[in-house]
Amino acid sequence: MLIVREAFLGTRRFEEFQGRLGIARNILTARLKKLCSNQILDRVPVKEGAKRHEYILTRKGKDMMPLLVALTQWGDRWVFGEERKPVIFLDREHRQPISRVQVFSSRGEALRPRDIMIAAGPGATPEARARIEELEELELS
Amino acid sequence: MLIVREAFLGTRRFEEFQGRLGIARNILTARLKKLCSNQILDRVPVKEGAKRHEYILTRKGKDMMPLLVALTQWGDRWVFGEERKPVIFLDREHRQPISRVQVFSSRGEALRPRDIMIAAGPGATPEARARIEELEELELS
Repeated sequence: MLIVREAFLGTRRFEEFQGRLGIARNILTARLKKLCSNQILDRVPVKEGAKRHEYILTRKGKDMMPLLVALTQWGDRWVFGEERKPVIFLDREHRQPISRVQVFSSRGEALRPRDIMIAAGPGATPEARARIEELEELELS
Repeated sequence: MLIVREAFLGTRRFEEFQGRLGIARNILTARLKKLCSNQILDRVPVKEGAKRHEYILTRKGKDMMPLLVALTQWGDRWVFGEERKPVIFLDREHRQPISRVQVFSSRGEALRPRDIMIAAGPGATPEARARIEELEELELS
């Protein structure tokens, strides 16, 4: 996740990741490889035909943005404290801090944890399905 | 994160966590201890004065909901596929699937990754601040 965050911050080269994250080269190599095999990062030549490579976020990687923002905001509230947060996300057009990431209903109402319930999806295993239904009964009773 | 998800799904007892996650008891013990010391879970007696304990989410833990939903939705899109997702989040009142977690500007506009920029926060180290400003110049040029 730290590597993905660095990629969102504009880091592309191996040496830059290494300098900014301060992790051992062999560990960084393994993690970058894994992120590439999971198609979160793409390893591409710096220029066409160049030997040097850089790591860029794929669509799958870029789609982690809401997750990354939610994680950062949670850390700001509960770990750093709002007064000591290291970065601020702004919307590029108005240069204003973005909103807090929230969960909304399909009608656009902000939901608290207690407003959300879970149902079995199409890929639920029979065990998971039974358990979710049992949970449901408990809550309804 | 799997333990936190279980807690959101209503799991409270050590044996339940163990049965559902299928991880070794010593590892589960260590992780629950860590989640308690990080104040994400609270270990409380089942009843007043009881010897048995259960683990419940603290406010800090419950506040991970948007993060957990964003992570789940990302996994549904990119790992399971929408047709094979194991769980669905519904809003309790209307029993409708919730919206996809998105990042919004303070004016309520949905933002794509490219619409978001980063500024140094009050707690940025001097190195982080210099780097963010350098990044800014690159993007503006």
